Amino acid sequence: MCPDVQTPAILVNGQASEYISSLDRGLLYGDGLFETIAVRQGQPQFWDEHLERLKQGCRVLGLASPDCMLLSREVAQLINADKQCVIKVIITRGVGERGYRPGHQSPTRIVQKFPWPDFPAGFTDPGIDVTLCNFRLSLQSRLAQIKHLNRLEQVLARSEWDNEYQEGLVCDTQDHIIEATASNVFFEKGDELITPDLKRCGVAGILRRQVINYCYHHDIELTIRDFSLKEVSGIEAMFVCNSIAGIWPVKRFDTTLFSRSAMTDRLMSVFNN
Amino acid sequence: MCPDVQTPAILVNGQASEYISSLDRGLLYGDGLFETIAVRQGQPQFWDEHLERLKQGCRVLGLASPDCMLLSREVAQLINADKQCVIKVIITRGVGERGYRPGHQSPTRIVQKFPWPDFPAGFTDPGIDVTLCNFRLSLQSRLAQIKHLNRLEQVLARSEWDNEYQEGLVCDTQDHIIEATASNVFFEKGDELITPDLKRCGVAGILRRQVINYCYHHDIELTIRDFSLKEVSGIEAMFVCNSIAGIWPVKRFDTTLFSRSAMTDRLMSVFNN
Repeated sequence: MCPDVQTPAILVNGQASEYISSLDRGLLYGDGLFETIAVRQGQPQFWDEHLERLKQGCRVLGLASPDCMLLSREVAQLINADKQCVIKVIITRGVGERGYRPGHQSPTRIVQKFPWPDFPAGFTDPGIDVTLCNFRLSLQSRLAQIKHLNRLEQVLARSEWDNEYQEGLVCDTQDHIIEATASNVFFEKGDELITPDLKRCGVAGILRRQVINYCYHHDIELTIRDFSLKEVSGIEAMFVCNSIAGIWPVKRFDTTLFSRSAMTDRLMSVFNN
Repeated sequence: MCPDVQTPAILVNGQASEYISSLDRGLLYGDGLFETIAVRQGQPQFWDEHLERLKQGCRVLGLASPDCMLLSREVAQLINADKQCVIKVIITRGVGERGYRPGHQSPTRIVQKFPWPDFPAGFTDPGIDVTLCNFRLSLQSRLAQIKHLNRLEQVLARSEWDNEYQEGLVCDTQDHIIEATASNVFFEKGDELITPDLKRCGVAGILRRQVINYCYHHDIELTIRDFSLKEVSGIEAMFVCNSIAGIWPVKRFDTTLFSRSAMTDRLMSVFNN
């Protein structure tokens, strides 16, 4: 691996720099948003969808919508000649006066490039081992679905295990399964796919939306609804997905073993490339 | 005001600098804690209590406890010859690899100095105007009481008004009053003081704790319990408090006017100086 891949390239407000002010509200309050984008064949994948979620997050937080042309140019500048990498975009409310009140700050725009993570082949075949996190997500409909910078709940959930699992399912305080720590989750029950409703908490992942759209356009029965922890005993298969990993079938959830399903294989053939 | 008061003095890991890495988990996930400390007569007020809350926060987040001697020295270095100022201490988990999993990062230690805010005299006499925020705090006992960097709920609550009120009361999703956006709240009902229980959400303020301790040592009846929004109609007085402002009596809560109480006057004579 060459040195410039190990050291991430970063633009802060268009300038090559790793640093931001310690007075930035992104640090002080987590007052901002982020997107993590897969780059394949030199192209950011689902770029429009990431921008759309970012803009939706800006609306929720009352931030000015980012200049999408500018952001696209900066992302292209960082990708440069790389075929495969990870781009992270962070937008914060910027540096302002002390206190929670949002003022007329100028947002901070950060674009970071990371080397592509080489996941073991076993994560896609036969699949991953998943645990159940003890940590419970709080119910906050005002912050649900958007990818904001307040991620202590995910940090605490992820801190429950080391490397013996590849993911952990997280329930809300009412024992509904909501998501995995860094991915969304789908369950298979008969011919039906189910993915949790995220109206009260959880992150509405870009690949989750793509899978939902694919199902709608290909007459695959899919339901978005509350999914209680107790229901897991009745399912036949499970997979998690996110923009970087793609789809990972779950081969074991705590003590329950799952075999591969035709549906998961089909979706993997569409989305894992 | 001289220029070096307007530009805050900042130490990052002991070095004079305003900047931190944009790869710091404090920015990426709000993975850290802060304390805001009043300096009077050149001395940080309730320093041991702030350190104790910071250490408690570190235990909750699984961060190494900060070096208190080092932190004290850096705070003293920044205060320098100032008699009155505000010190903010931020501890983050530091720069780590991509992903929520906490690793073996070296924490980032930030100490910032701000000029003392000159509150209008009217905030203490006759008191402040307070609104009720529409925003509701989520219930998350694992993150309650500590002063972590995930403060989007406070930002959204505070964004509901401009300058027509000095504070806003915030309820949880079960319509209990929990706190104000940047202060704690006490209610007076007959001879009893009541302050909300913070076991499910809210920040356990340093001055709140001091007021509680004072009551215990001076035979003032004080109850820490759930306080529903409906109960406000039965109270005689209300005040808010935080480390920087001290105690502010509430003279109006939305359309209800309150007069000054002997109890509030007594506590203000102890804590506002």
